[in-house]
Amino acid sequence: MSVAERIILGVDPGTTVTGYGLISVRNAEMKLILLDELMLHKLPNQEMKLKKIFEKTLMLIDEFHPDELSIEAPFYGKNVQSMLKLGRAQGVAMAAALYREVPITEYSPKKIKMAITGNGNASKEQVAGMLQNLLGLKALPTQLDAMDGLAAAVCHHFNNRVLNTGKKVSGWAQFVKENPKRIQ
Amino acid sequence: MSVAERIILGVDPGTTVTGYGLISVRNAEMKLILLDELMLHKLPNQEMKLKKIFEKTLMLIDEFHPDELSIEAPFYGKNVQSMLKLGRAQGVAMAAALYREVPITEYSPKKIKMAITGNGNASKEQVAGMLQNLLGLKALPTQLDAMDGLAAAVCHHFNNRVLNTGKKVSGWAQFVKENPKRIQ
Repeated sequence: MSVAERIILGVDPGTTVTGYGLISVRNAEMKLILLDELMLHKLPNQEMKLKKIFEKTLMLIDEFHPDELSIEAPFYGKNVQSMLKLGRAQGVAMAAALYREVPITEYSPKKIKMAITGNGNASKEQVAGMLQNLLGLKALPTQLDAMDGLAAAVCHHFNNRVLNTGKKVSGWAQFVKENPKRIQ
Repeated sequence: MSVAERIILGVDPGTTVTGYGLISVRNAEMKLILLDELMLHKLPNQEMKLKKIFEKTLMLIDEFHPDELSIEAPFYGKNVQSMLKLGRAQGVAMAAALYREVPITEYSPKKIKMAITGNGNASKEQVAGMLQNLLGLKALPTQLDAMDGLAAAVCHHFNNRVLNTGKKVSGWAQFVKENPKRIQ
C-alpha cells in the first residue's frame, strides 16, 4: 500500500543561529530535502533577528508546504533573560506555522537525542552520526544548528510512528532492526 | 501648522490575557480609538493562545494601520518557565508587527508608569486615573490589561515627543502644565 508523502520541517530557534532541517517521509523512508542555518549574530538588533526568523520560517513553509513543524524547545535555561530571548525566537518561528495552520509539536533536546540515538545524553557527534546513517547522507552534518533542526524533524517522524503503531520504538532501535548490516 | 495623524498601537502581551490600547495623536492631542483584551485562559493549549495573539495583533494592524507598535516588556520575571512563556507571547505579537513592517518600541512597566504618572512605582489606580485625564475618558479604564496596552501606547507618544523636542517631559508634568485647572 502506498502511503502519502509527509513533509516535516524541524527548527531549532535561537537569536544567534536558527537551524532548519526539512525531510520527506514516504513508506517510512526518510529523505533529506534541505538543511539551512540563519546566521543572526551580525544583525544590529533583536527586532531584525526576530523578523528574519519569522520570514525565513514563513518562506520555508510557503515553498515546501510541510505538514508539520517540529521544534526543539529547551524548557530550562541559565537565566530569565536568556529564556525571554529564546521564548521570543521560538514565538516568531511558531507564529509563522500558526499563521499557515501548520501543526506544531515541541520536543526537549533530551527527548530528541533519545529518539535518535537511544541516549538522552548523546554527544553532538553521536547525533550527527545517526542522522547520517538514517538519512543515507554522504557526509556528516557539520552545521550544528541545522543538524539540531533536522534532528527535531526526524524525532517527530519517530514519535508519530510510535503514536500510529502504539508501540514504542526509538529511532535507534528501529534503525538496528531495519539495518542490521549497517551497525558495527 | 497641521501635523499628520499618528496611530500608536500599545500591547501588553501575556498568555492569560493580552491587552491592547490604540490611540491617535494629532497636534499633540491624543484620542482613544480602541481598548481591547484577549481572554486566553479558556483556550486548551499554548499554541492556540499564541495563534490568537498573533492573529488579533495582525488584525488590528490591518484594520487600523498603526504607525508604530509600543510593547510593555518586563525584562525580569519570577522564573525561567514564566519568562519563556512571556517571551513567546511577546514574540508572536512582535511577529505580526515585524511582518507588516510596523516599527516596535519596548518599554519596561516601570518606565511606562514613570512616563504617565511621574512615578515608576505608581499603582494601577493612579495610572488609570491619569489615562482617564489625559484622554478625556468618561470613566476609569477597568480592563486592567487593556489599560496596560493603552499605557504603553501613551508612554510611546510621550517618549517620541521627548525625542522630537530634545526636552524631557513626563506625561504627568506635561499634563499639569497644559491642564492647570484639571489638577486638584
